Amino acid sequence: MIALFTDFGPADPYVGQVHAVLAREAPGVPVIDLLHAVPAFDIRAGAYLLPAYAQEFPSGSVLVCVVDPGVGGARKALMLAADGRWYVGPDNGLLTLIARRARDVQCNEIQWRPAQLSTSFHGRDLFAPVAAMLARGTLPAHAPVTLDCAVTASWPDDLPRVLYIDHYGNAITGMRAAIVPQHMVLHLRGQALHFAPTFSAVPPGKPFWYVNANGLVEIAVNRGSAAAALQLQLGDEID
Amino acid sequence: MIALFTDFGPADPYVGQVHAVLAREAPGVPVIDLLHAVPAFDIRAGAYLLPAYAQEFPSGSVLVCVVDPGVGGARKALMLAADGRWYVGPDNGLLTLIARRARDVQCNEIQWRPAQLSTSFHGRDLFAPVAAMLARGTLPAHAPVTLDCAVTASWPDDLPRVLYIDHYGNAITGMRAAIVPQHMVLHLRGQALHFAPTFSAVPPGKPFWYVNANGLVEIAVNRGSAAAALQLQLGDEID
Amino acid sequence: MIALFTDFGPADPYVGQVHAVLAREAPGVPVIDLLHAVPAFDIRAGAYLLPAYAQEFPSGSVLVCVVDPGVGGARKALMLAADGRWYVGPDNGLLTLIARRARDVQCNEIQWRPAQLSTSFHGRDLFAPVAAMLARGTLPAHAPVTLDCAVTASWPDDLPRVLYIDHYGNAITGMRAAIVPQHMVLHLRGQALHFAPTFSAVPPGKPFWYVNANGLVEIAVNRGSAAAALQLQLGDEID
Repeated sequence: MIALFTDFGPADPYVGQVHAVLAREAPGVPVIDLLHAVPAFDIRAGAYLLPAYAQEFPSGSVLVCVVDPGVGGARKALMLAADGRWYVGPDNGLLTLIARRARDVQCNEIQWRPAQLSTSFHGRDLFAPVAAMLARGTLPAHAPVTLDCAVTASWPDDLPRVLYIDHYGNAITGMRAAIVPQHMVLHLRGQALHFAPTFSAVPPGKPFWYVNANGLVEIAVNRGSAAAALQLQLGDEID
Repeated sequence: MIALFTDFGPADPYVGQVHAVLAREAPGVPVIDLLHAVPAFDIRAGAYLLPAYAQEFPSGSVLVCVVDPGVGGARKALMLAADGRWYVGPDNGLLTLIARRARDVQCNEIQWRPAQLSTSFHGRDLFAPVAAMLARGTLPAHAPVTLDCAVTASWPDDLPRVLYIDHYGNAITGMRAAIVPQHMVLHLRGQALHFAPTFSAVPPGKPFWYVNANGLVEIAVNRGSAAAALQLQLGDEID
Repeated sequence: MIALFTDFGPADPYVGQVHAVLAREAPGVPVIDLLHAVPAFDIRAGAYLLPAYAQEFPSGSVLVCVVDPGVGGARKALMLAADGRWYVGPDNGLLTLIARRARDVQCNEIQWRPAQLSTSFHGRDLFAPVAAMLARGTLPAHAPVTLDCAVTASWPDDLPRVLYIDHYGNAITGMRAAIVPQHMVLHLRGQALHFAPTFSAVPPGKPFWYVNANGLVEIAVNRGSAAAALQLQLGDEID
């Protein structure tokens, strides 16, 4: 199957155009809208969220990953084979954590180009057709390359920040729960947060942290909004 | 076909994960995103909206119904057969009106459990695989049970409240239009509302009530927002 | 394939009901959610946006186009064959620019009616089943007609206004870039805007205009929001 992970927004006329290309170029292949609400232009947030969701996809899946403010500029286009899945997207750091954490990874620059390539929508014109080829078992023209690490060399293995706030007001962080002991007290916006195993274990109104269903540390309030209770903003630091 | 009716939000990374499970476990079965914008945690709103939309689905359809603030706690997981459709979801009141209005209903607790069950996302881990089984014609392990009516015993047959406000500003209520005579004047936020057969029968700007396309009483303004005109909030009472 | 272009909103319980009809009446035909966020009731915005997106769809595609504030009133229902694609929707101006710019166009009134027709949701009850028939190669009952031009006769060939603001804050206009020379300086909200070939060619923060991936003039800011920078509103004029 093909999964889409972008900052295209769920409402705008971009996702549908990508689906149209995939329906035409890879008919019959299921296409999953995994996330189109990566915060706009926020490559780093996307980079730390992506591995948590990608692991849910079966071997052979193709993930189209596009947070691409440098589209039309000099950044390369990548197709990355990592632990049995394909990742297609720009070489701007978005795929860094996937590559860094993979047991088995091969990174290639996409050399194939479509007959018509817009300057602003490589998701539709380049990455979607490449994903369709990979899903059909065809390899587009490519060459081995190493990831551009100019920006990401200093990125930590886990990012103790609020990377995404969902519509319930839950705050998803870039910290894998596996590295945070459950007795640890986290601090966010001056408040101490204790671990709880489930929402229903905590009285309504009280913020806590828990291990979300994708293995990340998440800040929440039972039947309420952690974002409102703690006045959270994207990027807030946790310590 | 499988239909999804949840409070997961259309933008967040939850709906896509459910689709991924269904694509894997019930390949080729159409999956319809009926509604993911049930107001967050609002079991009662979901309970009264669900029958209005469910009736549009053909016999044999499987509806995955998840408004589940108690996930990870003690509430049971249900599979309900009602009037030829399956309903899969938590035993927290969400399926009460479906069961109460059905001519033919069988209620079962789901005893099947997946190899891995998160504490916070039974929509993905439990209800989606069960829906896939039902759509394929397989019955997961189950046992007859009666609905938990601790909370819902006092719920009326119709709910004269604003349960959903759509992006036009129309306000959907929990009242079936079949029980409201068209000469009846409704009152909401101190304003009297008369019946109109269509939007275009009413001058722009004037609030009215009509029978929406799913058989519910709805408050609207022709080419305008009833929510803005009447300063509506979710839960507002109608009398 | 079938594409949906509406003002139904991506979150509300309308799009899913249309999908359910199409899954039932045209099983196996891909259905693309092209855009459901046409500004509510804004027929004119839809009319100028539609041709830019429709051209991406292959010959034989069926586009369901619904911005229909007059639903339930006297306006006709249309099926338009234009340059190899079908367009199904209300006769209220929404299809005017498609018809005006087509090299080959045939306009028909839809005479077929479903067994049950709601007064407020012809997208589900009339246009979706007709689109399913057309996608299957069946012609519903119809008769040649000319478009109702009462409202649209004075509409220009291109509309120099902000018609859509996407979630990045980019402002899409109704001007085809092919008619605007790249040396032209545009003015919007009192600011002069120069052409740039790509986002990354412009320093962050500075508004510019460019040719978007659908051939329309679009106002943008590199890694920022033109809507915020220029305090844009829908309908703002460009000169």
